[in-house]
Amino acid sequence: MFQYWTNLFRKYTSEIGRGFGGMDNPGYRTGSFDGLHHPSDDDDDEMVDIAGATLDFSTTDDVPPLSSGGYNEYGTSGVGGRAAGVNGNGPTKLVDPLEDPVPGVGTYEDFNTIDWVREKSKDRDRHREITSKSRQSTVALLHSVSDAFSGWLLMLLVGLMSGALAGGIDISAHWLTDMKEGVCLNGFWFNHEHCCWTSNETTFQERDRCPQWKSWAELITGATEGPFAYIVNYLMYIVWALLFSFLAVTLVRAFAPYACGSGIPEIKTILSGFIIRGYLGKWTLIIKTITLVLAVSSGLSLGKEGPLVHVACCCANILCHLFTKYRKNEAKRREVLSAAAAVGVSVAFGAPIGGVLFSLEEVSYYFPLKTLWRSFFAALVAAFTLRSINPFGNSRLVLFYVEFHAPWHLLELAPFILLGIFGGLWGALFIRANIAWCRRRKSTRLGHYPIIEVLVVAGFTALLSYPNSYTRMSGAELISELFNDCSLLDSSQLCGYQQPSNISETGVGNTLADRPAGPGLYTALWQLALALVFKMMITVVTFGMKVPSGLFIPSMAVGAIAGRLLGVGMEQLAYYNHDWIIFKGWCSPGADCITPGLYAMVGAAACLGGVTRMTVSLVVIMFELTGGLEYIVPLMAATMTSKWVADAFGREGIYEAHIRLNGYPFLEPKEEFEHNSLAVDVMRPRRADPALAVLTQEGMTVGEVESLVESTHYSGFPVVVSQESQRLVGFVLRRDLLISIDNARQRQEGVVSASQVVFTEHAPSQAPDAPPPLRLRGILDLSPFTVTDHTPMDITVDIFRKLGLRQCLVTHNGRLLGIITKKDILKHMAQIANRDPDSILFN
Amino acid sequence: MFQYWTNLFRKYTSEIGRGFGGMDNPGYRTGSFDGLHHPSDDDDDEMVDIAGATLDFSTTDDVPPLSSGGYNEYGTSGVGGRAAGVNGNGPTKLVDPLEDPVPGVGTYEDFNTIDWVREKSKDRDRHREITSKSRQSTVALLHSVSDAFSGWLLMLLVGLMSGALAGGIDISAHWLTDMKEGVCLNGFWFNHEHCCWTSNETTFQERDRCPQWKSWAELITGATEGPFAYIVNYLMYIVWALLFSFLAVTLVRAFAPYACGSGIPEIKTILSGFIIRGYLGKWTLIIKTITLVLAVSSGLSLGKEGPLVHVACCCANILCHLFTKYRKNEAKRREVLSAAAAVGVSVAFGAPIGGVLFSLEEVSYYFPLKTLWRSFFAALVAAFTLRSINPFGNSRLVLFYVEFHAPWHLLELAPFILLGIFGGLWGALFIRANIAWCRRRKSTRLGHYPIIEVLVVAGFTALLSYPNSYTRMSGAELISELFNDCSLLDSSQLCGYQQPSNISETGVGNTLADRPAGPGLYTALWQLALALVFKMMITVVTFGMKVPSGLFIPSMAVGAIAGRLLGVGMEQLAYYNHDWIIFKGWCSPGADCITPGLYAMVGAAACLGGVTRMTVSLVVIMFELTGGLEYIVPLMAATMTSKWVADAFGREGIYEAHIRLNGYPFLEPKEEFEHNSLAVDVMRPRRADPALAVLTQEGMTVGEVESLVESTHYSGFPVVVSQESQRLVGFVLRRDLLISIDNARQRQEGVVSASQVVFTEHAPSQAPDAPPPLRLRGILDLSPFTVTDHTPMDITVDIFRKLGLRQCLVTHNGRLLGIITKKDILKHMAQIANRDPDSILFN
Repeated sequence: MFQYWTNLFRKYTSEIGRGFGGMDNPGYRTGSFDGLHHPSDDDDDEMVDIAGATLDFSTTDDVPPLSSGGYNEYGTSGVGGRAAGVNGNGPTKLVDPLEDPVPGVGTYEDFNTIDWVREKSKDRDRHREITSKSRQSTVALLHSVSDAFSGWLLMLLVGLMSGALAGGIDISAHWLTDMKEGVCLNGFWFNHEHCCWTSNETTFQERDRCPQWKSWAELITGATEGPFAYIVNYLMYIVWALLFSFLAVTLVRAFAPYACGSGIPEIKTILSGFIIRGYLGKWTLIIKTITLVLAVSSGLSLGKEGPLVHVACCCANILCHLFTKYRKNEAKRREVLSAAAAVGVSVAFGAPIGGVLFSLEEVSYYFPLKTLWRSFFAALVAAFTLRSINPFGNSRLVLFYVEFHAPWHLLELAPFILLGIFGGLWGALFIRANIAWCRRRKSTRLGHYPIIEVLVVAGFTALLSYPNSYTRMSGAELISELFNDCSLLDSSQLCGYQQPSNISETGVGNTLADRPAGPGLYTALWQLALALVFKMMITVVTFGMKVPSGLFIPSMAVGAIAGRLLGVGMEQLAYYNHDWIIFKGWCSPGADCITPGLYAMVGAAACLGGVTRMTVSLVVIMFELTGGLEYIVPLMAATMTSKWVADAFGREGIYEAHIRLNGYPFLEPKEEFEHNSLAVDVMRPRRADPALAVLTQEGMTVGEVESLVESTHYSGFPVVVSQESQRLVGFVLRRDLLISIDNARQRQEGVVSASQVVFTEHAPSQAPDAPPPLRLRGILDLSPFTVTDHTPMDITVDIFRKLGLRQCLVTHNGRLLGIITKKDILKHMAQIANRDPDSILFN
Repeated sequence: MFQYWTNLFRKYTSEIGRGFGGMDNPGYRTGSFDGLHHPSDDDDDEMVDIAGATLDFSTTDDVPPLSSGGYNEYGTSGVGGRAAGVNGNGPTKLVDPLEDPVPGVGTYEDFNTIDWVREKSKDRDRHREITSKSRQSTVALLHSVSDAFSGWLLMLLVGLMSGALAGGIDISAHWLTDMKEGVCLNGFWFNHEHCCWTSNETTFQERDRCPQWKSWAELITGATEGPFAYIVNYLMYIVWALLFSFLAVTLVRAFAPYACGSGIPEIKTILSGFIIRGYLGKWTLIIKTITLVLAVSSGLSLGKEGPLVHVACCCANILCHLFTKYRKNEAKRREVLSAAAAVGVSVAFGAPIGGVLFSLEEVSYYFPLKTLWRSFFAALVAAFTLRSINPFGNSRLVLFYVEFHAPWHLLELAPFILLGIFGGLWGALFIRANIAWCRRRKSTRLGHYPIIEVLVVAGFTALLSYPNSYTRMSGAELISELFNDCSLLDSSQLCGYQQPSNISETGVGNTLADRPAGPGLYTALWQLALALVFKMMITVVTFGMKVPSGLFIPSMAVGAIAGRLLGVGMEQLAYYNHDWIIFKGWCSPGADCITPGLYAMVGAAACLGGVTRMTVSLVVIMFELTGGLEYIVPLMAATMTSKWVADAFGREGIYEAHIRLNGYPFLEPKEEFEHNSLAVDVMRPRRADPALAVLTQEGMTVGEVESLVESTHYSGFPVVVSQESQRLVGFVLRRDLLISIDNARQRQEGVVSASQVVFTEHAPSQAPDAPPPLRLRGILDLSPFTVTDHTPMDITVDIFRKLGLRQCLVTHNGRLLGIITKKDILKHMAQIANRDPDSILFN
């Protein structure tokens, strides 16, 4: 029998293995084997296997998944008794599979889709049981109360942990980034700013300069100026960048292959009900946190915002293990993960409301109101934890604090919409280019050398970044500088305006009046233009490498540069032509009529909107950064334009594009199903196919069932009254069936291949010498979803989306006709869109 | 035959009429007749009938609903041809009911539930058609583009119209409120503030006093001071209050009975898929706008925020008639109405983001992401329209602009949570008392004299309000004053602190330091305490009267008073005991450690939260009022506490309680279905009932079908293959069936009672002398929803909620067993909760 199982599993894995051929991540490969191997709900303990697999996974192919050894560990916990329960004789002893399940029944394999209805129903049963027990004793009542509040407690913990981690990441990244330029003599663990705080010799004018902070050139050669010092600093910058990126990619490769990328596409897929074991595990968390700091510090064109969402989700997933309610239920866990996505954005930008809306608009699949409240709570807790850590040293909650003083004029909507068009075009272009590059990486030899790729890109980035001060500084610093308004006293190059000859000319006190550009500003504009081109190019190859990488900051940087350039242009136009009709009345000399910083902000929103297709959440995040309702209209105009323009070139945002690239079974909730097909066109079996594999509710033997299961690779089988009538009784999952039969064969007396398998409530009468029947009504889903063959597919897709189904049976006039799975729908949609239907890889 | 139809309809209406017995609104009564009378989709043209009905509706009972006369008006538009289409002979001529419907087929009767799936499917078909046509010609392409943008255009219009109306309401209410105290000699249409703006003699100190503004005493007796002048002013105040309230209630009674109340419970019900014709019609809009101004001005304890939501929804519904896409589709229209609810709150508070979240959290049922974007857009447009009108004269968007200067201390969370507990207790108490009072109004003779009731309450309110300055001012003014911080210069009574003897004692420049209370403040506190008790009492009887009345302002006023009282108490406690351990460190003398205004704000949020059970949207609205993330935590703590405390006394908010009171079929999306029942326990027929009334797909004659329909009152019938097999083919709606048969009898040759009714695709062979069959496959829903008898009810309820079903068929092993309607579920839920299942009145 062992041989039999091994064969069966070989057949089964080769099926999956084929699907995984397209994946470039070796971690995925073993992940799929572990599914049956450990029928536990522990998501993150698989990580060690995965990590090992990246080093040597050629041997795992032969491990039998349901070997008897694999089950022995469960034998001690009283499986024998439970198995007897499954096979009890009287109808009153009908087994509730939720209460005393055979281990493994009701769990999912890796890379499979969960059944939301079943999960939610399970949770309601659990809740009902606790409620009914709570009337009996005080302990049970306390248990019920603690159960009710466990969700809020969990949220509190997620907020605290994510906030603390984000604070740590901010501080470390700041320190390591400064490390590229120099070191603090008071202690190497101080960053530049911190180092100079403790110095007494810092003046207000030159806060950045203090004797304790030494640049590398100063330390090595003793010279602070001159070409030689510049070259030493340049080299050190490149060396550090290479070192950080090498460390990052090596750590990812060695310990947690899932830690690469932004994580948002995978989290979207997981939230839609897919299982990727280990993706949110503790190894991923640890490695992602460390490598994120390294990757950001290496100066690569990437941000930490997307990965922070992944980090928060890992925290949530790990903390879920503390509460049975969430550990054991995939649907409940996904509610927590939705909230964690909000927490991630909340700590990334200091925008709790924006974070909740981001989770709602962009990431989540199932977002009930309860989750809305909890997300909000967790996002607030996280934001306040982060603020108490105070990583930016200014007790500001937000990443880019801006305060504008001038209102905007209605005519300015034209340049804002122009920025929206730019953002949309760039978004569409970026997605195409990035996807093309990632596809090339998957399909060519390029993908085999991830470490070299990262090193080349990091070296190239460092080489080109250093000479230009706007690329040398970190993305967040750049954006922050671009957003800021120039006051008269501002000494930065971007504010290199000609000073008015006499103050009274521009009006006393109005230090923000428009002024003509000076040589400093012209230099800055040239540098910014070069930075824009460079950022646009390098981000395309950077996103998707095997290091943690977010897209928010690079996209915003591109938009902010473009916006600032346009803003300064508008400002000068208005200054020199203030008597034009369009400028008349609001741009008189000495008035502060154009705020270039606002243009930068609008541009940043437009570009980010073009890439991610966020709208409301983006505007709200920006609103939280500025705190003024005043600027919502410009932001709204730009993001809406950007979305429309980008949508004209392709409906998918970058995350959906990556989901499709990886072939995850994700049913996009935003897109309407447009085609005119019926359920009968999509269902299996097709006209030419053999008939649907069904079980009958009685009359089949264990051997027959096993051979039926063996001869197919379906993950579930409908149970009918009889082969002739094809009237549907229920649905049984392949996994549950295999586990139950295997379990019964081992634990139960007399179950042999000739035993009858019975799904009815009452065992049928049979010959007295026949072996005892195997009663499996306990694992039968008596309420499978059905649609008629005439149901339009748009309605069917709607049902799948809204109820989170995995499969649905198709009937005609009461007879079972076929089955539609989520994968069938995705394949059908791919076919309609003239894509390869086999690009959908998983179940 | 005419007689026959009249009889049938009598039977039918008596059925409905019984259900309506419980309704106290005569408008409902005729509304139900108009459903069949005008099978049009025009919602608001019924209003005239309803208005007439309130004067004389005894005659409408005898109007036959489907009289041939009723149909003649459609005859001219080619119904004959279409009817022939319905009865075409070849299977290729199968009629698409969406393209050329018999008039009335596919529409709904009044007080019925729509089928979301059918509506959305209809819209997708329409969209598909437009898209496929758009490839053929440029005109069609333009049509397709305009169709795509019509949603946004509609949103723009809704925003503009609602914003403008809200501005008008604000200005008029302000004017009429001031009218109660005096009149402007420059022009009676100026309000007090406006009157004094134009005056040159206004000083900065006494902005409110100017010679042009005369109080009534001044105008009538010439004296401004003294007891006689006081009495004259008092009397005039009462007279105006009575006049305004009389006008309001009379206008509502005479022209638009639906204009009373806040409207939010009904809008919630409508959004969940219920039809109330005329509720959002033009008459309701006009009358509600006018009477809202009158009711607010009369000084009754009510607000204009809830009714503004109703007004915005009326605007949206009326504007929907401009676009075929929205006029003809009940589901699409509801998407627009969801956005309009956001618009209403946006203009009520000047909080667009809060408005969108309010719509999402509190009002909407189906809120896809597309609606989220559009709501946000419309809310912004409306807010900016309102700001351009500038009704408050301070170019502020928000109703209560507050700016606090002091941070809050962690220890203050204790009093904030205390306020939350108060808010929750008050919310629970208010809901109980108000529902008890409304039930009494419905069941006793009290309900027969709505005009007298309003006059008595208004007179009583005016009588008690005038002597106390805090009740004399309008609710919004009161809240605004309570929210404000006291500076040293503030002259209001609430800021009657003892001035520090020498400024240096409190620290120069800190004008907000805590000071000991003076006699002015003590008087204010007494008056506030009295106002609190008065507001708590009078609001209970005011909400639910036959005038437009919102709850937001009265609830917030109660909370703000309580909060301010607690805040001042805390302030004095801290001032006199600043050496206590708990105050040490943050409440040293001269520090501004307690902000009573913040307590008022937290209290307002807590009370509003207790009454409505809003959480996130409430916090966001408050956040938009203050613009500081700083105060989110206190607000969050208070609203959460308030919700938990209130939920402990009853799960329903005030709106849900009123929905239940009125017996609307509303399936609460927030509440989980807890009970352990199966579909078989809820479905009809019950065990003792006669078998389910089904039609067979062939073999029944027109006469048999008619007698079956006549003998029952179901709104739909399953169609099965044969009575023996009970295998389900489809589902046909009573209304569609009646209209089609009636239409065929009149328009089609040879259809008599003996004609066969055929639902199959191919007509069966029959005797050559038999009358031609009536083919009705066109009206048959071939994809009815089915669940198995073993489906747990929690899953079934979930399906109903998420898909917006009206009914669902129950099968067992492929055989039709029964049917579950939304009403059955609601009755079952009422039964579980030990309520009267017959309290669910409508279908």
